[in-house]
Amino acid sequence: MTLLNETWNGKNNTNISLTSNSRLNGLGSVPNVEAIEGWLIDKIAEMLALEPNQIDVQQEFSEYGLDSVEAINLSGELENYLGCRLSPTLLWDYPNIETLAQYLADTTTGNKSNSANFNNSIEEVQADNGRSSFDSLPQTEPEKQLNIPPEYYRFESFPEYQKLQLQIQQVEALGNGNPFFIPQEQVVNDTTIINGRELINFATYNYIGMCGDRVVSQAAQDAIERYGTSACASRLIAGEKPIHRQLEQAIADFIGSESSIVFVGGHATNVTTIGHLFGNNDLILYDSLSHNSILQGCFLSGASLVAFPHNDFAALEEILRDRRERYQRVLIAIEGVYSTDGDIANLPKFIELKKRYKTFLMVDEAHSIGTIGKTGRGIGEYFNVNPHDVDLWMGTLSKSFASCGGYIAGSHALVEYLKYTAPGFVFSVGMSPPNAAATLAAINVLKAEPERVAILQARAKLFLDLAKERGLNTGMSENSPVIPIIVGDSLKSIQLSQNLFKRGINVPFMIYPSVPQNEARLRFFVTCNHTIAQIQLTVDTLAEEIAKL
Amino acid sequence: MTLLNETWNGKNNTNISLTSNSRLNGLGSVPNVEAIEGWLIDKIAEMLALEPNQIDVQQEFSEYGLDSVEAINLSGELENYLGCRLSPTLLWDYPNIETLAQYLADTTTGNKSNSANFNNSIEEVQADNGRSSFDSLPQTEPEKQLNIPPEYYRFESFPEYQKLQLQIQQVEALGNGNPFFIPQEQVVNDTTIINGRELINFATYNYIGMCGDRVVSQAAQDAIERYGTSACASRLIAGEKPIHRQLEQAIADFIGSESSIVFVGGHATNVTTIGHLFGNNDLILYDSLSHNSILQGCFLSGASLVAFPHNDFAALEEILRDRRERYQRVLIAIEGVYSTDGDIANLPKFIELKKRYKTFLMVDEAHSIGTIGKTGRGIGEYFNVNPHDVDLWMGTLSKSFASCGGYIAGSHALVEYLKYTAPGFVFSVGMSPPNAAATLAAINVLKAEPERVAILQARAKLFLDLAKERGLNTGMSENSPVIPIIVGDSLKSIQLSQNLFKRGINVPFMIYPSVPQNEARLRFFVTCNHTIAQIQLTVDTLAEEIAKL
Repeated sequence: MTLLNETWNGKNNTNISLTSNSRLNGLGSVPNVEAIEGWLIDKIAEMLALEPNQIDVQQEFSEYGLDSVEAINLSGELENYLGCRLSPTLLWDYPNIETLAQYLADTTTGNKSNSANFNNSIEEVQADNGRSSFDSLPQTEPEKQLNIPPEYYRFESFPEYQKLQLQIQQVEALGNGNPFFIPQEQVVNDTTIINGRELINFATYNYIGMCGDRVVSQAAQDAIERYGTSACASRLIAGEKPIHRQLEQAIADFIGSESSIVFVGGHATNVTTIGHLFGNNDLILYDSLSHNSILQGCFLSGASLVAFPHNDFAALEEILRDRRERYQRVLIAIEGVYSTDGDIANLPKFIELKKRYKTFLMVDEAHSIGTIGKTGRGIGEYFNVNPHDVDLWMGTLSKSFASCGGYIAGSHALVEYLKYTAPGFVFSVGMSPPNAAATLAAINVLKAEPERVAILQARAKLFLDLAKERGLNTGMSENSPVIPIIVGDSLKSIQLSQNLFKRGINVPFMIYPSVPQNEARLRFFVTCNHTIAQIQLTVDTLAEEIAKL
Repeated sequence: MTLLNETWNGKNNTNISLTSNSRLNGLGSVPNVEAIEGWLIDKIAEMLALEPNQIDVQQEFSEYGLDSVEAINLSGELENYLGCRLSPTLLWDYPNIETLAQYLADTTTGNKSNSANFNNSIEEVQADNGRSSFDSLPQTEPEKQLNIPPEYYRFESFPEYQKLQLQIQQVEALGNGNPFFIPQEQVVNDTTIINGRELINFATYNYIGMCGDRVVSQAAQDAIERYGTSACASRLIAGEKPIHRQLEQAIADFIGSESSIVFVGGHATNVTTIGHLFGNNDLILYDSLSHNSILQGCFLSGASLVAFPHNDFAALEEILRDRRERYQRVLIAIEGVYSTDGDIANLPKFIELKKRYKTFLMVDEAHSIGTIGKTGRGIGEYFNVNPHDVDLWMGTLSKSFASCGGYIAGSHALVEYLKYTAPGFVFSVGMSPPNAAATLAAINVLKAEPERVAILQARAKLFLDLAKERGLNTGMSENSPVIPIIVGDSLKSIQLSQNLFKRGINVPFMIYPSVPQNEARLRFFVTCNHTIAQIQLTVDTLAEEIAKL
């Protein structure tokens, strides 16, 4: 069960293949098992800030607290070291230094001769160095037979695509069809309609019921009437509408920041903002449970990257103490409510560190804005911190705010700089009028009806309390509407999700590598529209079905 | 005039500063002028596929056909070589090898002593290697004074932000205020309302009048009624609506591909698709006038990158002949209609190359879908090619299709793979119901009313013909609704735009670095709703105002 395995970095080759541009550690030869083992010991010691002699070659990587992202980073560095492509699942297949080094030494040596013909197939062609004429291809050039395997130029032949198909087949073999991309036929709320059947629903971000709300829908429809369905240009040039400014002001006011900027996608907000603000001489320290959008922004930035153990600000301080001064800009990236586990970052501690070590602090509030804090103003309100103590307040518009998009809120300088220079903003159309209007209306409704947040929090507490009473494993979830039920085994999680579906409850499963191997789970999003009866019924049914597994 | 200078890579430091982690060419010492010169000769020879002895150190970089993107790439490699940060405008300020090498040798040597105190300020702190306790920071750690300048931890102090402010001031000093982010108060079409005043408008992507169209607006409003304003989840999990599938089918049918996938943003479509499909062992060859979104995807991918001269398929073939076999996957990225120049790629030639060299071919149809080809089916229809001969048909939904978003159309395998694994799709909410519905309706209206395309093409031709009659410089524009009027000087372009504004015509200027230094221009987007009289008046006024400059 490794479905969605490639979603992080998308570079998944199951075989090792030496490539023509391999650097082979500068030596031109494949290192032996001792050399690889030594390299791994040094590298892992460095990642964990340990001495090399503290590394046990037989200890599993996961026991060192190496998470999936670090594992992928390590794979990347290994690729550079060995000059070959590696599977990103390598560290799961060979889970300690000893077995991994042995495998790599065996395979690279073995492959060296196998791949020789690929290396040798490169014949330098005498280049025609004259500037080319524009009107015709040099047809007289003698044709040379290119030896390119189909997996390099046909999507059907990609190894990662073939692996994906196998994984889908594995899931379908459970007998309940393909559980992905199931159309939802109406507004998705405490219930949803699938194939004409109504189910109790825990698969929606619609935390405070703004999607489908009459006022919100009407505002979006009115905006279409006034502005049409598109901004029709970049806002910089001619795509600015009064509603964009009203929305950005409302977000800033709601959070308590000086200013804000909205982007057309939440994922893209993190990618382009992090990718734009940080570069080669900078360091990004991100929580090991960070969302993919943060990681993609990190990759794009070119900055040095270190994941710190989840929520562990003491470990973070060790890294900062050791490394802060080696870099120019340093970013600490955390989330308000973590989307797989439903726990809340200890924001005051991170602010303390940010100030002490003169770094930037970014808080992704995708799942915390509108859901925590007395009036839904998120983690800043929850901990009663000064909003100016966070440099980048990031949030999405597709959850509490019933739309699609993302925002960055912070100082005037930050927002002005992003508005004139962030690639994903400057070179994008402005947010569509209905999406902007829906968000603005949702914020206004939330300000007028803060009781929605109180009800949401009460319902989430009820769900958590009942689940705990039943002895279900809710992991780290606390004071948030994201409640995992950790089952452990992947197949059992899928089966549990499908059995609940049959009993009228829609809740998705999460399996490796979205969560660690032995922590497969169901994830419940509670909303303010869920009734007490729905929650009681759900936890009862859940407990029964888990007992049957 | 270098406004928007940082929009490409966002890493702009005007000073060279040696950093603590500088690699200094592996020698620990700063190379001298001869060494730098030699490095530059080798590197530029490699980029241009020339012999080192063919490189003249006094010839300007631009004369070698080095475009801005290659210049930025070269800056990046120089940074690695010298182990320091460089301004991306360096190659403009020191435009040949001789002056650049001299400057770099002077500055790095000079800075070496200046930056010594930064280097020396790094004191290794004894790390506490025990696993950290979660509940308290080690307050007993003796505080050490951190010597971090404000530009590393305050946005207000970023040199690039301060430079931006100067640039805005320069533009405002022309006396007509800030020309950016001007709110448009209604649907933007052949006219727009700004500050209560109606202007003839050439600043909108609304090529075929779908934004504000009654049928399109009604469809979006109806979708809100049925589905609400948000998809409320990733489509993979529970965000799929029947309308998403209908839209993807309609796009595939319209283009003639097997399948398609829609993303919430057009810019993000390129970033996540290119970034996901290609990696370290791959090569991306992109047209030198490629849109920023393609470049960002290239950067994210980690692939080797080469820009080929604009539309020059013969030059492209040279690169392919020389390099194809050194890489695994190779992507050729072109556009249907180029957005700054309004010219059309010779698609059949690129297909020929793609087949001969077994590469992938991607065509960005942001400005060609709905605008060229007899019925608006884009560049495939324009050249009557087999749609299956292009691997990745990319388009945006914010122009002809009156919405916001992007699509990739191609084989079933490609689309299925992206739907399960592309980060910007899997980890994003689904497209909002009104945005999806607007696009679907626009495609249906276009199919029912292909005369919109015929009118658009006639109006664009009229504009181009009249402009040429007046002796205006329309550059490479042909058979497309994008028509630049090339003025040359940046300040004059801004002034011309502002003078036309005063006379009731809204058209944006484009200046360096969005276009080359001496090619500043106005850019007109013609739409099917422009009347013959509006176009005649505009070209007349334009010619008068240019004469006055």
